[in-house]
Amino acid sequence: MERIELFELSKEYLEALKENIIGEHVDFIQESMQDANKADVAALLDELEMMEALFVLRALDPDFSADILNELEEDSQYKVIKAMPPEELATLIDHMDSDDAVDILNQLVVNDREAVISHLEAKEKSLYIIELLRYDEDSAGGLMAKEIIKANLNWTVVQTIDEIRRQAENVEKIFSIYVVDNKEKLLGRVALKKLILASSDTKVADLYEDNIISVPTYMEGEEVAEIMRKYDLEAIPVVNVKNKLVGRITVDDILDLIREQADEDIQAMTGISDDVEESDSVYRLSRARLPWLLIGMVGGLLGAGFIGFFEEGLNAVTALAFFIPLITATGGNVGIQSSTLVVQSLANRSVFADSLTKRLLKVLLVAILNGLVLSLFVMATVVFLYDKEVKFGLVVSIALFSVVLLASFMGTLTPIVLDKLGINPAMASGPFITTANDLLGLGVYFMVATLLLNL
Amino acid sequence: MERIELFELSKEYLEALKENIIGEHVDFIQESMQDANKADVAALLDELEMMEALFVLRALDPDFSADILNELEEDSQYKVIKAMPPEELATLIDHMDSDDAVDILNQLVVNDREAVISHLEAKEKSLYIIELLRYDEDSAGGLMAKEIIKANLNWTVVQTIDEIRRQAENVEKIFSIYVVDNKEKLLGRVALKKLILASSDTKVADLYEDNIISVPTYMEGEEVAEIMRKYDLEAIPVVNVKNKLVGRITVDDILDLIREQADEDIQAMTGISDDVEESDSVYRLSRARLPWLLIGMVGGLLGAGFIGFFEEGLNAVTALAFFIPLITATGGNVGIQSSTLVVQSLANRSVFADSLTKRLLKVLLVAILNGLVLSLFVMATVVFLYDKEVKFGLVVSIALFSVVLLASFMGTLTPIVLDKLGINPAMASGPFITTANDLLGLGVYFMVATLLLNL
Repeated sequence: MERIELFELSKEYLEALKENIIGEHVDFIQESMQDANKADVAALLDELEMMEALFVLRALDPDFSADILNELEEDSQYKVIKAMPPEELATLIDHMDSDDAVDILNQLVVNDREAVISHLEAKEKSLYIIELLRYDEDSAGGLMAKEIIKANLNWTVVQTIDEIRRQAENVEKIFSIYVVDNKEKLLGRVALKKLILASSDTKVADLYEDNIISVPTYMEGEEVAEIMRKYDLEAIPVVNVKNKLVGRITVDDILDLIREQADEDIQAMTGISDDVEESDSVYRLSRARLPWLLIGMVGGLLGAGFIGFFEEGLNAVTALAFFIPLITATGGNVGIQSSTLVVQSLANRSVFADSLTKRLLKVLLVAILNGLVLSLFVMATVVFLYDKEVKFGLVVSIALFSVVLLASFMGTLTPIVLDKLGINPAMASGPFITTANDLLGLGVYFMVATLLLNL
Repeated sequence: MERIELFELSKEYLEALKENIIGEHVDFIQESMQDANKADVAALLDELEMMEALFVLRALDPDFSADILNELEEDSQYKVIKAMPPEELATLIDHMDSDDAVDILNQLVVNDREAVISHLEAKEKSLYIIELLRYDEDSAGGLMAKEIIKANLNWTVVQTIDEIRRQAENVEKIFSIYVVDNKEKLLGRVALKKLILASSDTKVADLYEDNIISVPTYMEGEEVAEIMRKYDLEAIPVVNVKNKLVGRITVDDILDLIREQADEDIQAMTGISDDVEESDSVYRLSRARLPWLLIGMVGGLLGAGFIGFFEEGLNAVTALAFFIPLITATGGNVGIQSSTLVVQSLANRSVFADSLTKRLLKVLLVAILNGLVLSLFVMATVVFLYDKEVKFGLVVSIALFSVVLLASFMGTLTPIVLDKLGINPAMASGPFITTANDLLGLGVYFMVATLLLNL
């Protein structure tokens, strides 16, 4: 078999790796992956079968394997940790930061989780983990790591550097040293840069910035992300209700969170009910898409029954049927536009936001303006281009105008209500609402027609 | 007038501020904003009229004003910089990092830009700026800052710390020291942590990691963001084609970029043609939404003309009209789901991605599976619940099945084609494609009806 010396993210290397796994060539794995990046190895392992990935993880140094395990995609990660005996998983978790350890453990059922924790070697780490498991996964407490560097207000620079040395192995990335008082209350921070430039007997008290932004353990992850973005922070300290420093969140976790959030929103908007990717299996893709398609279908069938009520009217004026797609499509477009604007303003709440009444008034004005333009346009087309009666043109344009107004209100109110109920407001731009808007539009259209054309 | 001592992000403070601006009380502004955060002051200034914001910026220290100016929303920022004389803007830009300076200057026309640059005091900064202005705004070169800390491979720790001291004022946040050879080629990096823990005569050559990830100046910002997320980086060095270190990008700029990108995608998907927010004026909101609504309207009118061709068929079988919304809505839902999956996989390109043929085959399989379920469901409902003839049920379900297939293909191919043409593929989930899908669906429906019912 051909010998490939260096790891690379390629189909060729993937093939060579698979062959070497079958041949159980541990040395190939160790040598070729020596200088590889954890994220790259993880991307490669995501392409392997579970048993193959497990073989690779066992061949590598536990410290490196732990890093790789953290970077795996949720699916492959879950399969691998389910397959590992508790002792083995505990060895890897001993090499992880507490926040990553908790992300892994949260995927296991309570019994398995406890079995793994009981096998942990580092006493301090298991205490950290038990504390972190108490927090909601999506809260600041669930996102933070316990590994931080704290300095007491009364320490000198030398003492602080000694503390950094002591913790150097536990805290991979140091951005700031957090300054606390004797009761561990957060007072401020010292940038690493300042520490380097200060003379060694300077007191921390003379170096630190007290104007520090922190978040409470119970704050939602999304809000933490917005604060870190707004204030350009690469790490943020987390405090408990007594303002005691309990951990920190780093920006890399926030980047992952933002991406997951964006994917979730888009999937809510497009009616894909599960977290799927193009590379998933046909069965899984189909299953994830079907529920919302069926709901849309039920809506369409209700619409059919609905139009059926007006069968006589349709028989009398067949042309009514021509404009059905116009009415439903416009309702859908207006509704989605409105809800998107609201969803975006919900994501960036401002203390200066207008009151609900004022916002609805504005929605009304925009809808009237757009509704008028669209109705006039349609009126002209229907009468002059399609050569219909003015009365018929009036039916279509009045119905259209009403649909623009109604869809604007529905599109504005739905995300606000969903948000109040604790449901992701992005759902308001999804197929459920589009379907509801379709039915609403049809109702208005045929009502106007019945009234004006005396059907 | 009541005296408010401390800055806060509230409507009350905003009112007090406005009154003090009218009264020209510079001391109120200076005192109350003394310890405020730049991002908070900017959020407040976004609520003011341009002349009011200008008054506040002029009252504050130029260093602080420069920071605030950078944090303003695009609209307010543009108004303020347009109104400033070049000398004044140059003073603020003298206090900015080169990347922020370029973001500001890029908004001015060439003449104004050159006038500002000619008034800059710092020689080095103006050279930086002139270099950065050459790069495309959305490329790594356009995103990077020139302010970095470089250490030569042969330096000692003491020499490196001296360099940090020399640059401390220019480089606000130091994450790593970049290591270069005599020709300024990037060799690696030293984490600040390592520098602190090393003894002062250690050589940089013995400390640095050579396994460093860098990006070329021409790489697109979106790709840089994905690399920083994947590899958990808080800063990334930028190199030119000769691998010479020319700047660095920090994660705070990437967070802003990701958010802008997400907003843009969502607006593309929902047919809002301009970067608007719920708080914008009625006129602006209306204008941003109208173009796509009109396109949808034209689509709807074309659809009407289209159905008109089948008027006789409709007269013969009125029930055909009932299922128009079902057909168009399903086409729309399937199309949006398909395009979203492709857009997401385009955002996370993988070397292990399947070939186009394989992907389309999978799309076909998913479409057949979902199409079958939906068609059977509809067939049963039409025949048993709505009591129509089997032949009529066949028309609706065959049309539906074809629409699911066609919309899946359209939804998959459109974003791929748009991406190849350099257009944002998220547009493929927008109103234009939904409209096209509607027309396609109607065509298939009436064709099937004509053939099967001999209309």
